[in-house]
Amino acid sequence: MIMAFTSVGLTARTDQEKALDLAKELMGYLEEKRLDILVDPEVAKRIQRIDSASALEEWKPDFIITVGGDGTILRTCIHVPKPEPPILAIDMGERGFLAEVPPKDAKIAVDKSLRGEFTLEHCKKVAASVEGEALPDALNEVFISADAPVKLLYANLWKDGERILEVRADGLLVASQTGSTGYSIAAGGPVLDPETNVFVITPVCPLTPFPPIVFSENSTLTVEIERPHSALIVVDGYYRKLVEKQKPHVAITKSKNVTSFIRFRKKFYGRLKDRLLYPKGRRC
Amino acid sequence: MIMAFTSVGLTARTDQEKALDLAKELMGYLEEKRLDILVDPEVAKRIQRIDSASALEEWKPDFIITVGGDGTILRTCIHVPKPEPPILAIDMGERGFLAEVPPKDAKIAVDKSLRGEFTLEHCKKVAASVEGEALPDALNEVFISADAPVKLLYANLWKDGERILEVRADGLLVASQTGSTGYSIAAGGPVLDPETNVFVITPVCPLTPFPPIVFSENSTLTVEIERPHSALIVVDGYYRKLVEKQKPHVAITKSKNVTSFIRFRKKFYGRLKDRLLYPKGRRC
Amino acid sequence: MIMAFTSVGLTARTDQEKALDLAKELMGYLEEKRLDILVDPEVAKRIQRIDSASALEEWKPDFIITVGGDGTILRTCIHVPKPEPPILAIDMGERGFLAEVPPKDAKIAVDKSLRGEFTLEHCKKVAASVEGEALPDALNEVFISADAPVKLLYANLWKDGERILEVRADGLLVASQTGSTGYSIAAGGPVLDPETNVFVITPVCPLTPFPPIVFSENSTLTVEIERPHSALIVVDGYYRKLVEKQKPHVAITKSKNVTSFIRFRKKFYGRLKDRLLYPKGRRC
Amino acid sequence: MIMAFTSVGLTARTDQEKALDLAKELMGYLEEKRLDILVDPEVAKRIQRIDSASALEEWKPDFIITVGGDGTILRTCIHVPKPEPPILAIDMGERGFLAEVPPKDAKIAVDKSLRGEFTLEHCKKVAASVEGEALPDALNEVFISADAPVKLLYANLWKDGERILEVRADGLLVASQTGSTGYSIAAGGPVLDPETNVFVITPVCPLTPFPPIVFSENSTLTVEIERPHSALIVVDGYYRKLVEKQKPHVAITKSKNVTSFIRFRKKFYGRLKDRLLYPKGRRC
Repeated sequence: MIMAFTSVGLTARTDQEKALDLAKELMGYLEEKRLDILVDPEVAKRIQRIDSASALEEWKPDFIITVGGDGTILRTCIHVPKPEPPILAIDMGERGFLAEVPPKDAKIAVDKSLRGEFTLEHCKKVAASVEGEALPDALNEVFISADAPVKLLYANLWKDGERILEVRADGLLVASQTGSTGYSIAAGGPVLDPETNVFVITPVCPLTPFPPIVFSENSTLTVEIERPHSALIVVDGYYRKLVEKQKPHVAITKSKNVTSFIRFRKKFYGRLKDRLLYPKGRRC
Repeated sequence: MIMAFTSVGLTARTDQEKALDLAKELMGYLEEKRLDILVDPEVAKRIQRIDSASALEEWKPDFIITVGGDGTILRTCIHVPKPEPPILAIDMGERGFLAEVPPKDAKIAVDKSLRGEFTLEHCKKVAASVEGEALPDALNEVFISADAPVKLLYANLWKDGERILEVRADGLLVASQTGSTGYSIAAGGPVLDPETNVFVITPVCPLTPFPPIVFSENSTLTVEIERPHSALIVVDGYYRKLVEKQKPHVAITKSKNVTSFIRFRKKFYGRLKDRLLYPKGRRC
Repeated sequence: MIMAFTSVGLTARTDQEKALDLAKELMGYLEEKRLDILVDPEVAKRIQRIDSASALEEWKPDFIITVGGDGTILRTCIHVPKPEPPILAIDMGERGFLAEVPPKDAKIAVDKSLRGEFTLEHCKKVAASVEGEALPDALNEVFISADAPVKLLYANLWKDGERILEVRADGLLVASQTGSTGYSIAAGGPVLDPETNVFVITPVCPLTPFPPIVFSENSTLTVEIERPHSALIVVDGYYRKLVEKQKPHVAITKSKNVTSFIRFRKKFYGRLKDRLLYPKGRRC
Repeated sequence: MIMAFTSVGLTARTDQEKALDLAKELMGYLEEKRLDILVDPEVAKRIQRIDSASALEEWKPDFIITVGGDGTILRTCIHVPKPEPPILAIDMGERGFLAEVPPKDAKIAVDKSLRGEFTLEHCKKVAASVEGEALPDALNEVFISADAPVKLLYANLWKDGERILEVRADGLLVASQTGSTGYSIAAGGPVLDPETNVFVITPVCPLTPFPPIVFSENSTLTVEIERPHSALIVVDGYYRKLVEKQKPHVAITKSKNVTSFIRFRKKFYGRLKDRLLYPKGRRC
């Protein structure tokens, strides 16, 4: 694959010194390579490079480098304009599921990326809207609950206009294939193989036992919130929307957008084994 | 058993018209019986009997009548002074686990209560304190989480001064024997037989699979919250305390207090069967 | 839909007197309608109609009537030649998930079937083979375990020629969409919506927590049994094959065959609600 | 603690060359120490020391050395006469939960044992009987199922003469405190803290969701098997009893016997962490 990368967006987790150090080091390396560099303003401030700061919402680089964990990636995807540039994800310490490149290989990975020596992994996303108003797409999952912990959510589930089930639970979680190995698994959800065209809805602490249900990605799933009248919708653990309305409808479908990762080696099941055996921080 | 009941506290769920109607009807019946009656102020207002209103925090009646579900009972127990008078629980519609008497039998149950024709079921409670400050005892469970849904809680578990495990989960739930059939079961916890002297800690959506653990009621369990610095502690789904502190310690032991129910017939496993097969609202 | 049904196969569960009684009654009714009738030999014997007995393995009727539960259907599907005629499933008492028609409506259902007033529900099946030798297709699930209970199965999972995971568990269960509401759900598997093109593999009592995994029906899944050297493969709870071999491979794919049900009204989620709330016997 | 150990029983797993090698080496070491040595006949044959062979059923040594995993321990406990001598458990490779001493420390552990420099961990056992006939005590668990995999067990549960629940499941598992970290956890059972006086019954693949139930060790639990008429009872994964009877009763209580382990350091929760994070073979 030949892609002439001439610009790059750079972000990092800001609660970890070594992530910022590596970001700074990569910054120098990318300048040597004469790339145009956009830096997440928060990161730019911390590494004294305000000159290169650029709001994520305005990024249009050829590719993005994230130095952190899954959380750094998820937050970046929520903010950058669509379609998203491919992401080179450097994995800092608490190894996440999405990030692949260990810090010591960061420069080699940049070199390979510039030479086009990689494959792209395309991850489908989930689109949610509340009463017709779109939320940011979810790479991992959309979570629906009452506005505070330990409050029961009463909801009706609709599929393509047919009312199919009612649920009483602490929360409902709709995960994409990518998200099936994240929060969803902790709620008892299944892993979805990358070649499936489905998503999965899993209740959190259902009042009566209620199994996860796997739907075709071509279905439109609607969650009609009966109670309470103040509900919370969380996208990928970062974007939070409080909905104060009588019986709001949350519609969930496949997004038109994807997130693409620059990959060098490890496949899905290799990463899954790591996730199941040596799990690290879920949000970082 | 002979108990000379001369005073009674009366409360009801206020979001249900028929519960209020029955409360009003019972009010008249109790007056005929010449009992001293204390009425929950909110209920008193709704049934036009402000004259008998009395704050739960000041109740010292011989027994209490609750017209509602488990939620009505749990809320009452949080507020009344200790030791708690025995509770006659009338079960409104969405039958709970703790309430036993169907509405149509309410007056008969009152008669039997006044004649002493009942058994008392004593339910142990869980005592929690945050940094030495006591919270209300829990009849069902103490729940610890981050201050908002979908935020990971990092905690260390101590048992009698020994650090035993670390947990990363959405929340931690410590349930009494009574509470083991409530919220705890939805999180995957076991049922505790009434003759056991234990309580159970169950994680909600743990990052890595983490089984429920059953402890002796003579143990002191301490949850040391590593992160986040804003945590929420919820007692019986009603009492909510936000803790904003570095690494607060939540200590959990058996309470010196019990809650006692006036029972006529159904035993624990009869109620459990109903709960598992025909579950109704968890909080009402 | 117009289908000229002129012949019918009739079977029933033989451990239930009222199922046999209804089969006998239907037999008379079908004769009035002048249909050619093939009767399961075991049933024929019990209802004194040996004259019409015909081995299931030789049936080629226009449609089949089963009087029983899911077990009666599963057993029938294992034995009849492919492609399978559509099935009119009368549901006896312990209501199953697949059977729909209550006994009192049996004759009306026959009438409607003969007039073509129904829809056909087509259910995909799972094809399994051991070392290249095909087993009967599964309508519900293929189960792989050691040859006796409480023996650990050591297996490697391959997907389309790639070794993806190793599993240590009491058993492994690969369920079709139809089977996802059966045994699979008891092992913690998700429900698969009828519009998905997937199947699901779920471990039974895994040594280490191991989530169910959902695969595209276009994948070939291979279970390589490491240990023990005597393994058991069970199709739909009826067909049992003992495999005594070093490291046998069990290959699992989508079958070319389907099972079709004659349906009058209830949809998938209506039946699912019944299954979750009022579950009856799994095998009958 | 001063105990004058003058005799020792020696056993090892026989499917692992290095376990046998270590057993042979220890044999020599124990002879140097002038101990009377009883060797498991199967092991004696494999290490060419038939001269010291002695059937487990006749062992009365001061202590026992097991070279293997949990399986070796469980099998030994089933066979040796009661009360059982304390066990020094050398852990071979696939580290189990019960064995503690790594092979390289085996001789040091023997020295310490002879000098009395250890603590004893006493593990309660579960006693089961079928129709009044006692089975060997279980250190870990008693498992009850149909006589073959994938057959539903219909059973009624009695507690101290009261019929409390009915269960339909693949199997039922009653685990001791010690066994709660073994097979039971794989079926969804809770961990029981060593200071609890309880055992836990957990269904395997229940037809309808059925939580694990924790009972006081002073309760007598009776499983009345409704169906099938050929049932299997397995103690600690080794002792298997086929019961062919109409509705047999399996009674389960606390045993009068305990199993004692010679321990040097690691406590319960240290071992639990290892079990949850780096689980090894369940039966070896």
